Amino acid sequence: MAPSATTLKGQPLDKVLLEAMLKRRLFYTPSFEIYGGVAGLYDYGPPGCALQANIIDQWRKHFILEEDMLEVDCTVLTPHEVLKTSGHVDKFADWMCKDPKNGEIMRADHFVEAVLEARLRGDKEARGQAIVEKEADPKKKKKKAKSEAVKLDDAVVTEYEEVLAKIDNYDGPELGQLIKKYELKNPETGVLPSDPVAFNLMFQTSIGPSSNLAGYLRPETAQGQFLNFAKLLEFNQSGMPFASASIGKSYRNEISPRAGLLRVREFLMAEIEHFVDPEGGKKHPRFTEVEDIELVLLDRDTQLSGKTATKSIKIGEAVKTKLVDNETLGYFIARIHLFMIKIGVDVSKMRFRQHMANEMAHYAADCWDCELLTSSGWVECVGCADRSAYDLSVHAKKTGAPLLVRQQREVPLVIEEWQIDVEKKKFGPLFKKDARTVEGALEATTQEQREKLAKELSDNGKITLDVAGVGNGQVEITKDSIKIEFRKRTENVREFTPNVIEPSFGIGRTLYALLEHNFWTRASDGGDEARGVLSFPPIVAPTKVLIVPLSSNVQFKPNLKKLSQRLRSLGISSRVDDSSASIGKRYSRNDELGTPFGITVDFQTLQDQTLTLRDRDSTRQVRAEEDKIVDAIKSLADGSKTWADIEAELPKFEGQEIEVAER
Amino acid sequence: MAPSATTLKGQPLDKVLLEAMLKRRLFYTPSFEIYGGVAGLYDYGPPGCALQANIIDQWRKHFILEEDMLEVDCTVLTPHEVLKTSGHVDKFADWMCKDPKNGEIMRADHFVEAVLEARLRGDKEARGQAIVEKEADPKKKKKKAKSEAVKLDDAVVTEYEEVLAKIDNYDGPELGQLIKKYELKNPETGVLPSDPVAFNLMFQTSIGPSSNLAGYLRPETAQGQFLNFAKLLEFNQSGMPFASASIGKSYRNEISPRAGLLRVREFLMAEIEHFVDPEGGKKHPRFTEVEDIELVLLDRDTQLSGKTATKSIKIGEAVKTKLVDNETLGYFIARIHLFMIKIGVDVSKMRFRQHMANEMAHYAADCWDCELLTSSGWVECVGCADRSAYDLSVHAKKTGAPLLVRQQREVPLVIEEWQIDVEKKKFGPLFKKDARTVEGALEATTQEQREKLAKELSDNGKITLDVAGVGNGQVEITKDSIKIEFRKRTENVREFTPNVIEPSFGIGRTLYALLEHNFWTRASDGGDEARGVLSFPPIVAPTKVLIVPLSSNVQFKPNLKKLSQRLRSLGISSRVDDSSASIGKRYSRNDELGTPFGITVDFQTLQDQTLTLRDRDSTRQVRAEEDKIVDAIKSLADGSKTWADIEAELPKFEGQEIEVAER
Repeated sequence: MAPSATTLKGQPLDKVLLEAMLKRRLFYTPSFEIYGGVAGLYDYGPPGCALQANIIDQWRKHFILEEDMLEVDCTVLTPHEVLKTSGHVDKFADWMCKDPKNGEIMRADHFVEAVLEARLRGDKEARGQAIVEKEADPKKKKKKAKSEAVKLDDAVVTEYEEVLAKIDNYDGPELGQLIKKYELKNPETGVLPSDPVAFNLMFQTSIGPSSNLAGYLRPETAQGQFLNFAKLLEFNQSGMPFASASIGKSYRNEISPRAGLLRVREFLMAEIEHFVDPEGGKKHPRFTEVEDIELVLLDRDTQLSGKTATKSIKIGEAVKTKLVDNETLGYFIARIHLFMIKIGVDVSKMRFRQHMANEMAHYAADCWDCELLTSSGWVECVGCADRSAYDLSVHAKKTGAPLLVRQQREVPLVIEEWQIDVEKKKFGPLFKKDARTVEGALEATTQEQREKLAKELSDNGKITLDVAGVGNGQVEITKDSIKIEFRKRTENVREFTPNVIEPSFGIGRTLYALLEHNFWTRASDGGDEARGVLSFPPIVAPTKVLIVPLSSNVQFKPNLKKLSQRLRSLGISSRVDDSSASIGKRYSRNDELGTPFGITVDFQTLQDQTLTLRDRDSTRQVRAEEDKIVDAIKSLADGSKTWADIEAELPKFEGQEIEVAER
Repeated sequence: MAPSATTLKGQPLDKVLLEAMLKRRLFYTPSFEIYGGVAGLYDYGPPGCALQANIIDQWRKHFILEEDMLEVDCTVLTPHEVLKTSGHVDKFADWMCKDPKNGEIMRADHFVEAVLEARLRGDKEARGQAIVEKEADPKKKKKKAKSEAVKLDDAVVTEYEEVLAKIDNYDGPELGQLIKKYELKNPETGVLPSDPVAFNLMFQTSIGPSSNLAGYLRPETAQGQFLNFAKLLEFNQSGMPFASASIGKSYRNEISPRAGLLRVREFLMAEIEHFVDPEGGKKHPRFTEVEDIELVLLDRDTQLSGKTATKSIKIGEAVKTKLVDNETLGYFIARIHLFMIKIGVDVSKMRFRQHMANEMAHYAADCWDCELLTSSGWVECVGCADRSAYDLSVHAKKTGAPLLVRQQREVPLVIEEWQIDVEKKKFGPLFKKDARTVEGALEATTQEQREKLAKELSDNGKITLDVAGVGNGQVEITKDSIKIEFRKRTENVREFTPNVIEPSFGIGRTLYALLEHNFWTRASDGGDEARGVLSFPPIVAPTKVLIVPLSSNVQFKPNLKKLSQRLRSLGISSRVDDSSASIGKRYSRNDELGTPFGITVDFQTLQDQTLTLRDRDSTRQVRAEEDKIVDAIKSLADGSKTWADIEAELPKFEGQEIEVAER
């Protein structure tokens, strides 16, 4: 059963009300709307843009500055060859099919799922059973197909249910077979869709005037970081482990974008690539700082058993029991958890879900998604994957660039092994032009082979070796031209390709979840249902302070200007609303914009420099001189004090019930 | 004559030295370098990325927060129709020609210019004259064609010089004619290039799976702001004037990108669209705050006379004399000037150049570029244009969206004019199905026609009117069915399309100029030539403080950690360098990274909590307790104190000449 979405105060979330408010306050809006819009493209208006900038600012502080990560800004335009090597050209695709009658293009897996689910609903209806909806999964958001009350055989029901359980496992041809086997017709037109074809999700373009350099808009910010690995390692003075990070737009040409900000074609990502030595269990030096943090986990085994029950567990315990693969992965999961709470995510609507084996890329060691509960179900907002050495290895192999770490060994490594020495003077004349080939064949022998060859040489005074392309394919080498000995070799330098732990944030999805998690209406306080509030924490609120003069009297102007300049110099954003609307209406508007604090300037201010400070969430007010009010705002904004602290310090203001009086 | 580029200390700029340093310190690097790179694409490494983020942060404070601008974040992907309407699909192109022999693709204007200049150089050589190079113009950066010492006729020299002076005025066919007329062969191959063809500079792609929605990567951030105008006006509670602003990537598929960061295919822009009432002279309410600021201007008339002499003039004076078209344009030019100084641009290497009539778009009223002097000559870093009502008008016309302002008139407008009233009861039966057509023809009459018709009606009791498509094309209307009178009409609402003043910043170019303007070497102080310094102002420096422990002794660790946490909580970025390099080498590295302050932690620190603070520019040091050192850094970083202030307050430290001693 899908848990239903609620407001911050636990009331059922009225999504229509919320969306109307977000539109009215211009948090975001469909791009090119006056031209009819383009699916999957949204613009952020002023409050959305400020909210996004504040989330990014906190992200930079929480991750990049806190851990001295190396931030880079790489290009979006990426040449074909890079994404061919990374595997995106071949594999970054969805299967799509087309309705031959109306030309509709559909994701094949979504189509099969929708039609089978409709049949099962129809069956239940025919049997007179209650219809229990599957948990909504926004990754597969789809139009619900119409159902008809038709009873199915019990065996057919079981078969459909098995197909649905494995829906993520089918490739295109298999989906095509299912469509034919079950005669899955598009309910809109009554015809079978075409065979599924792969549709690559990357936007393609051509770089330069000659049209022969194919390129794509990057589907993730990771590749630029991998390609710069050697330079970053050098910049870091060869210190390991280290992390790079990047904040920027990425692009995916979704077949059918839906669900507002949750599946879009152009989106902001913030990605970390933490490079770690694969040996020694991927320890993290600061893991002890987070090990006692309790997380809500939904592990792989639980999901495989068809359940969604989560468990609360300390991350230290999760790593110790190998539920989470290693310390570094665990460290970042905990850091993501802390970040989400800091920016105002409702902790009761957050979980970490482990990828099932078939969901992960073949090279990944482990992967956990931070999912947030919204009205579209649980939404993946952050992925945290151990990508192993895959990316660095494929790019190194393709280009020959040394994307690896060379470390002086503290204790030189001593290896005892069979070694072959060639007596060049004898060997050369013996094999002439084939000398190199024969030497290569010798070098290619394994330790086991060498042991045998050594015995052969000492027993017979010569060895016989298979060398393709030389003579009849076999050569004889006598003991005066080679030596095979078991002896020690010392290695002072160790070379390895680092593994990568990648926390990857979808900023737009996180921002949308934040809107839902912080939304409530004054109805919860017995107030007006239509009066929405967004209770963002001050650090991410688009504007921190609303300044409202009691009237638009020019006498107030100097005070307003001085006050906003003073706040600005403290790095606190404010906005003056000197419109002619009532104070109540002006506060109402700013509750919807999520402005946490309000200052009223009135005629008394002109006499004694006192101001009224209003708290958005409680609507309670205090009054004091400007200095004290500014200090209060400063500590509220940086989180060092709560509103309760301020109420304990400064005199309450109950002069007039502006809120009620003016409405 | 090209003014030659100098370091911050006035020495000639050694560009090779600077570029080697920028590469070594990873300010920026060619993208995809391990794959051979792609022309015109660069990645920013950690210091470049931080410098860019700090410039943007200051930009946001200086423009957006200071003036309550409405920041928006619009998509890069833009459908064809939008850019067709804006004129970019038809006009955003350069002329290119191709060498049929080696396939080289060249910008046609660059090619003609290069070959003619080579011939003039050859002529001078043949005449034994000194060769004076034209002022370098990075917008037309080109390979210099090889010259041969061949004397030309005097008339030919004059002709070539005239062509070169007008090179920006030729279109593609004209450039093609020049190539044929003067037989301009590619010096590389000895053949004539092909006829120039227009090459649109926008990157094209296809949006969605069906490939039928053509789109482009935006060439500027402006269009998204225009399309959202009506929503932004409403968000601003209909207040005028107001500005929107946007910071984001834009794309231009340059034919032959060169000159490092100065002409790239993907770049960060910061653009403001200030919407202003076209009536009343485009006044700006805060113009008095800037009117006394003195600017260096290179006006249109001076350039037309073939000169580059600038004049220093107060912006108030420039607007008063109409040198700068209006107050709002002047206000932003002055604000750009202040911003550039704030981030560390050398004011002696900055000028504002007015566009000549043929450089501006046909709709622009006036346009000034902020140009910065670099080793590639004067570089346009900011454009500041009055775009008139062009953009809003074309989008409104195309879509029917009301991109205009409706204002209640303070004093209603009274218009006295000829008006026509139709007596419906008589008029309808008279014309039956043609009644609407006839009425439309009446409404379409001009004031002059109405005056005549009124006379006709009163003289003859009827009028004769041409109405295409009704009867024989003429109708008679009698005085019982219409009335034509000269009388008053009152208009209470005024509708107008705002004009747009657009300051548009190229962040990458500005960043590159900043690097050159702040670069010098210790040779200026009698030190080492190879020791570069980047003297960024603290507010934009990538890292503010370097913390160096005297040795990597573990005893220092707790102090280092505490110190960086303390600085971080003040919003001051720091970096610990506990590598084994000498202190001198560690400071040297950070001089190259532009880190303004250094703190040394030594064994005395462990005893008395005192620290040494070093100033990057003078390399002088003071020593005091941690609290005082942190306070000093805070005031240095926010600009409230200078190093001289700090030296006056805190005891000088001359314990050891670490710099010299350790090298």
